[in-house]
Amino acid sequence: MKIAILGGTGHLGKGFALRWGQMHDVIIGSRNAEKASRAADEYAQTLNDRGIDTSIEGTDNRTAAERADIIIVSVRYEQMRSLIELIHPVLDHQIMVSVIVPMGKGRCYIQPEPTPVTIDTSDSEYNSDYFCYMAPAEGSAALEMDTLLPDGVELVSAFHNVPAKELADIDHDLEFDVLVCGNHMSSKKAVFNLVHNIPVLRPLDLGPLEASVLVESLTPLVINVAKRNNLKDVGIKFVHF
Amino acid sequence: MKIAILGGTGHLGKGFALRWGQMHDVIIGSRNAEKASRAADEYAQTLNDRGIDTSIEGTDNRTAAERADIIIVSVRYEQMRSLIELIHPVLDHQIMVSVIVPMGKGRCYIQPEPTPVTIDTSDSEYNSDYFCYMAPAEGSAALEMDTLLPDGVELVSAFHNVPAKELADIDHDLEFDVLVCGNHMSSKKAVFNLVHNIPVLRPLDLGPLEASVLVESLTPLVINVAKRNNLKDVGIKFVHF
Repeated sequence: MKIAILGGTGHLGKGFALRWGQMHDVIIGSRNAEKASRAADEYAQTLNDRGIDTSIEGTDNRTAAERADIIIVSVRYEQMRSLIELIHPVLDHQIMVSVIVPMGKGRCYIQPEPTPVTIDTSDSEYNSDYFCYMAPAEGSAALEMDTLLPDGVELVSAFHNVPAKELADIDHDLEFDVLVCGNHMSSKKAVFNLVHNIPVLRPLDLGPLEASVLVESLTPLVINVAKRNNLKDVGIKFVHF
Repeated sequence: MKIAILGGTGHLGKGFALRWGQMHDVIIGSRNAEKASRAADEYAQTLNDRGIDTSIEGTDNRTAAERADIIIVSVRYEQMRSLIELIHPVLDHQIMVSVIVPMGKGRCYIQPEPTPVTIDTSDSEYNSDYFCYMAPAEGSAALEMDTLLPDGVELVSAFHNVPAKELADIDHDLEFDVLVCGNHMSSKKAVFNLVHNIPVLRPLDLGPLEASVLVESLTPLVINVAKRNNLKDVGIKFVHF
């Protein structure tokens, strides 16, 4: 399988490349093809140094998308629309995977006239700073991206809550769950396999692409939990009996 | 500490009573005082049978609220407004705890004209059924409740994602995290203590009451994950390094 990682020089790209580069062909995409190429060489070298044969190359985002069977879209939300416009002409039945989360600091909800909020700022322990989910008009980044894709290209939403540092540490088993949603079972299954390729991540089906609202908004929650409780590299696990 | 559990004959009430009845005075509130009284006797008997001394009584929601230091509001979202109106006259500097989650089946987001969604229903494995978070106009159930409370009553949002069956099984340690948000550190700390009273739940600070949007929407996500992946009594744990 050929996997393109668009925005592959970013914070998740290295981990994806080092993990999937062990069993798939990986193409790092970037706005800057040279930068992509340098990153690809570095990732390949890391695997070669451990005696692992690999095929990791780097090129511009459009060329990477054109050559791939599965396209991981790992750019900032602000760059999503222009990236999809750029690669649209070369999209033809690939599976797309969105890891994008629109978030920021501000109010977690939209209403015509915000209710005045009383926060006890006289309390010196109180810290009102937090990240919130900035839902696009379409509901989520994945739902917005879906409106931009040509027919026949199936979109899956996944990998929002895997800590980048842990992902890039290939000696480390990842005891996390990965929530996966999408409107086509066959493309979701292809992504379940990508999850299983990374020990010991567990894929969990979260339903149709509409449910991406629920999983994208988990990322600011996880960041808030980490910051406020002094935890590092936080992931999520669903505990059950 | 006197803890009132309003809606205390419901699915979470039994577990709260059996856990906190071991170290606090518990007052079960219900629309039907007799039903509350019968439930309280049953919960107390369960603890007495294990040689645990306890004070659990049952009465109507308003009387329960009046007598308590901390009020757990554990009713359906649909009953929230009428319950707060009913108890409003007796609210006077209690700490309120909302465990309410407005959810249902439908679309997870609001927009003027929904984008047509293509789901591959020809795929026999595909199941598009899922629960979504039904955000009130105020942003969350807790934010809405906060607008209804008199000055001096501090609201904390917590305990949304503790599975009821596990909570009521007092021989069972709960390896979950409880996310807590609110606008006053002192009342949040009182709730952290209630969390610590239930082994081995861990309280995590999620920030101001506005962040309740993020935690309330976790509940439909957890239900979807459980239903679609055949998991039972699912809770959440934040894994970190």
